[in-house]
Amino acid sequence: MAGAKRSGCRFCEIEKGAGSALVVHEDATTLAFLDRRPLFPGHCLLIPREHHETLFDLPDPLVGHLFANVRLLTHAVEMATGAEGSFVAINNRISQSVPHLHVHVVPRRRKDGLRGFFWPRHPYGSEAEARGIQAAIREAVEGLRR
Amino acid sequence: MAGAKRSGCRFCEIEKGAGSALVVHEDATTLAFLDRRPLFPGHCLLIPREHHETLFDLPDPLVGHLFANVRLLTHAVEMATGAEGSFVAINNRISQSVPHLHVHVVPRRRKDGLRGFFWPRHPYGSEAEARGIQAAIREAVEGLRR
Repeated sequence: MAGAKRSGCRFCEIEKGAGSALVVHEDATTLAFLDRRPLFPGHCLLIPREHHETLFDLPDPLVGHLFANVRLLTHAVEMATGAEGSFVAINNRISQSVPHLHVHVVPRRRKDGLRGFFWPRHPYGSEAEARGIQAAIREAVEGLRR
Repeated sequence: MAGAKRSGCRFCEIEKGAGSALVVHEDATTLAFLDRRPLFPGHCLLIPREHHETLFDLPDPLVGHLFANVRLLTHAVEMATGAEGSFVAINNRISQSVPHLHVHVVPRRRKDGLRGFFWPRHPYGSEAEARGIQAAIREAVEGLRR
């Protein structure tokens, strides 16, 4: 499947075969390759072949298949690198180096030094503050589902 | 849908209504609630109601719907908190605080201090090293797809 491409997008170039990438998996709608500057060896990026900037931009019919492949890739990366676990991450806009949706799949080991990435945590100042945020998100979810 | 529960699992307790959680979204197979110690206010956790430890353990039929809800929640959290972007993450085993699959959805803003979580990067020592890892992952993917 060709799908929409964006001129100048580094990942659309890879998808067209013009960029150099070490591909680890490909099928009709997705492509996975090694991140050239990995957090750890085996760190892969999985992309939809079509150009979509963020997860929210990804059309519904592509969501299930893309994440079935993320699921497959977590296990394959763990097996291939002898890892004890894995980390899956998506940056939507902020910290997103290439504006073409890509899912990071990273092998993890105990004491690998990445422990701190989910830190610092900031507990809510009050129950009222937490409930206010809860209400705002519930309202947004309801609005989007209508 | 009830589905399999695991005794003593904190998220199964929340799913049964026994744990206290500020729920932001729920449907037949998934549940989302505020992380009580957020990276930033609005940080949510989305779980399958059934107890599955990692993404790889999640049955195929549940994958598409779970991630359609992750997709929905990224936008809802951004809208509700006025964020510029979002971060989606899954820890499989390593750094996984509760052994019940949960997807983090975190609102992001420029210069919010989380820039460094994807660091340090470690480029491959040689092209041969990278190609060796590529071959191992390709082989694992092929093995899993058979």
